[in-house]
Amino acid sequence: EARAILEEMNPVDIASVFEELDAEEMVKLFRILPKETAAEAFAYMTPEVQQNVITALTDKELRAVLDTLFMDDTIDMIEEMPANVVKRVLKVSDNETRGTINMLLRYDEDSAGSIMTTEFIDLKQDMTVKEAFERIRAIGVDKETIYTCYVTNHNRVLEGVVTVKELLLSDYDKRIGDIMEENVLFARTSDDKEHIAGMFRKYDLLSLPVVDNEQRLVGIITIDDAVDVMQEENTEDFEKMAALSPSEDTYLKTPSFVHAKKRLGWLLILMISATITGGIISHYEEAFDAIPLLVSFIPMLMDTGGNCGAQSSTLIIRGMALGEIRLRDVFRVLFKEFKVSLMVGAALAVLNTIWIYIRYHSMPIALTVGVSLLCTVCISKAIGCMLPMVAKKVKLDPAIMAAPLITTIVDACSIFVYFNVALALLKI
Amino acid sequence: EARAILEEMNPVDIASVFEELDAEEMVKLFRILPKETAAEAFAYMTPEVQQNVITALTDKELRAVLDTLFMDDTIDMIEEMPANVVKRVLKVSDNETRGTINMLLRYDEDSAGSIMTTEFIDLKQDMTVKEAFERIRAIGVDKETIYTCYVTNHNRVLEGVVTVKELLLSDYDKRIGDIMEENVLFARTSDDKEHIAGMFRKYDLLSLPVVDNEQRLVGIITIDDAVDVMQEENTEDFEKMAALSPSEDTYLKTPSFVHAKKRLGWLLILMISATITGGIISHYEEAFDAIPLLVSFIPMLMDTGGNCGAQSSTLIIRGMALGEIRLRDVFRVLFKEFKVSLMVGAALAVLNTIWIYIRYHSMPIALTVGVSLLCTVCISKAIGCMLPMVAKKVKLDPAIMAAPLITTIVDACSIFVYFNVALALLKI
Ligand SMILES: [Mg+2]
Ligand SMILES: [Mg+2]
Ligand SMILES: [Mg+2]
Ligand SMILES: [Mg+2]
Ligand SMILES: [Mg+2]
Ligand SMILES: [Mg+2]
Ligand SMILES: [Mg+2]
Ligand SMILES: [Mg+2]
Ligand SMILES: [Mg+2]
Ligand SMILES: [Mg+2]
Ligand SMILES: [Mg+2]
Ligand SMILES: [Mg+2]
Ligand SMILES: [Mg+2]
Repeated sequence: EARAILEEMNPVDIASVFEELDAEEMVKLFRILPKETAAEAFAYMTPEVQQNVITALTDKELRAVLDTLFMDDTIDMIEEMPANVVKRVLKVSDNETRGTINMLLRYDEDSAGSIMTTEFIDLKQDMTVKEAFERIRAIGVDKETIYTCYVTNHNRVLEGVVTVKELLLSDYDKRIGDIMEENVLFARTSDDKEHIAGMFRKYDLLSLPVVDNEQRLVGIITIDDAVDVMQEENTEDFEKMAALSPSEDTYLKTPSFVHAKKRLGWLLILMISATITGGIISHYEEAFDAIPLLVSFIPMLMDTGGNCGAQSSTLIIRGMALGEIRLRDVFRVLFKEFKVSLMVGAALAVLNTIWIYIRYHSMPIALTVGVSLLCTVCISKAIGCMLPMVAKKVKLDPAIMAAPLITTIVDACSIFVYFNVALALLKI
Repeated sequence: EARAILEEMNPVDIASVFEELDAEEMVKLFRILPKETAAEAFAYMTPEVQQNVITALTDKELRAVLDTLFMDDTIDMIEEMPANVVKRVLKVSDNETRGTINMLLRYDEDSAGSIMTTEFIDLKQDMTVKEAFERIRAIGVDKETIYTCYVTNHNRVLEGVVTVKELLLSDYDKRIGDIMEENVLFARTSDDKEHIAGMFRKYDLLSLPVVDNEQRLVGIITIDDAVDVMQEENTEDFEKMAALSPSEDTYLKTPSFVHAKKRLGWLLILMISATITGGIISHYEEAFDAIPLLVSFIPMLMDTGGNCGAQSSTLIIRGMALGEIRLRDVFRVLFKEFKVSLMVGAALAVLNTIWIYIRYHSMPIALTVGVSLLCTVCISKAIGCMLPMVAKKVKLDPAIMAAPLITTIVDACSIFVYFNVALALLKI
């Protein structure tokens, strides 16, 4: 009965059903799944569920699961398992698989090597289309994708690609060497995975071959895994831009203590930096002792400066992440931000000056706030657009130069400008 | 000579070469490209380049380009062209194409209908695998993807899918009806495209069929277009979360005036809101008249509150965008944020109290700041996590409830708490 229901379901949904079960039910359910479906669903299960299932399986059953699992998913699973489970996984694997696992585990976690899988279709130049189809029929069932086939020489050096679409639309007796595309986009094992994800987006790829230092084809990356990298990198940027240390797990699954730890670091740094602004304020005590009203414009100035800086830095960080803004555009960016600052700053300053004059009938005070606001907008947009580019230049992640840090820096500048304008215009 | 170089290049790169050329060179270059490559590159060109090329082509040449262009790319192009170009495109198209164009143009720009294309392979249940391959060979060259084939009945109602992988691994005389998968994931034309992109990510899809209200198959969405939606939606969130109105163009291509317009709206709203905080400060003039030192802690309190709120709201907004946090998790979220607030708030407050006591030798002032800080952290995290969920509940975009707005609200709260704690503890 359960089997009938599960057979109608997508493996991804089956995997999420497992999260609701207790350990015993999991294993029971896993055993009644058709072999193929079981292995497919296994790849989508959470590490906790995977561990439960593995522990309960016999060596023979475990080997069957591992055989159908693609190598990249095997590695993802192994990376989350405790030592004893890893040991058992390696023990039931054959020599070749064990070698591949050990090779893949060695790649840096941000590298192309860490997201590639090793199940691909390789063809030779002197095969005919008919022979290629025979090979696909023979070995295709175990491959992650059969739609792009890779042509290699006897040293496994990548020479070209041919898609199944091209094979299907060609005559049976054509040679692969004649129909293959020789200008192949490829990645190296050490390439940054964020860059790889960008290539998938730019060139609309379904898969990308990965070669080692000798140009030998060692794996492929498929679009579904590139999509995951994209979302992870976006999430990482969202987090860094909100003064959070990046997290590995979802919000609800992360314990409160870990949440606190990931938030405290930046909060501390920013809190200490904010005391500098406090120090500047203390320094101008005479000013607001003479005109207490001055204090009440501080939040508006600080917030507007912070928001202006956040707008500029967000646009630059995002533009650089998408490859739309490069370091050599620095002067174009600076000039554009300056023009925008003048327009936005003037509008805000004029409105403020008029409003304060109407409200408090003091032109000097109104002008003090207006002039300070215009300066604040210009400074904050300049800082907001420059710091992410400077970070990139010195090989830091531009995403840390976002709202929280920019705000803190801009706060100090705007308060400093404000009180100096006040001292000059109000003759305190 | 130029042709030889271009033939080695990827169509995407060819398209970007065109951006560097003047109108005359563009057309010359476009004419020497092989037909297939020209049409492929055309889809990746900027609207300006496309318009230049179209204007220079003869009707016959234009028809050839339109014939090889996929319908979704045709629509994207048409949407950017001036009326006279659109008219010419429609004029050179045949009746059927014109009908399809008019149908596709009618879909809402956030809907699945707006990103689908109409070139897909449809099979019938009673075909054999051999007949299916014959059909693919016959019509496949014009289809956006041939790797997933859709099985429909005589009313064009979607009945199942079969992949080319399954076809290749099946015997030639098997019936399609017997090997097709009947539980098909599909979208409706009116579905939100952000939701569609989420389905591609969740289920690792390469394409997704789109049906109309009568379950008739009207188009397919392919992964490359879903990836574009993902990045657009991410960019939209980044922009909204930084108090920017979403932009249609890249940073460098957007004129300064448009930039200013997109930034001014939120800045104005936030500036006016920030004056409330200023008003609260004015209200407690006696307090900082008595103890001017109090003013210097305002930036630290405001910034820390803003940062705490930004952290919480970012995590919730992102979690909801990825489908990891749902509205029914509201109490789990609130409880978690409360625990985190206590840990983070206590750590920051204790440090601050000690530091202020060492620096100014006044325990009442040190305690005032410490207690206010703890309250600020709790309030800001509560507001930061609740507002995005409230927004979602009332069908607003949660992304607007991010740092800028949260900061402004939290500022007012923290200043209010601060001065009340000061009045109570310092007996002013
Ligand atoms: Mg991995
Ligand atoms: Mg793309
Ligand atoms: Mg994979
Ligand atoms: Mg995967
Ligand atoms: Mg990264
Ligand atoms: Mg990054
Ligand atoms: Mg469209
Ligand atoms: Mg996925
Ligand atoms: Mg498309
Ligand atoms: Mg596209
Ligand atoms: Mg949207
Ligand atoms: Mg959205
Ligand atoms: Mg602030």
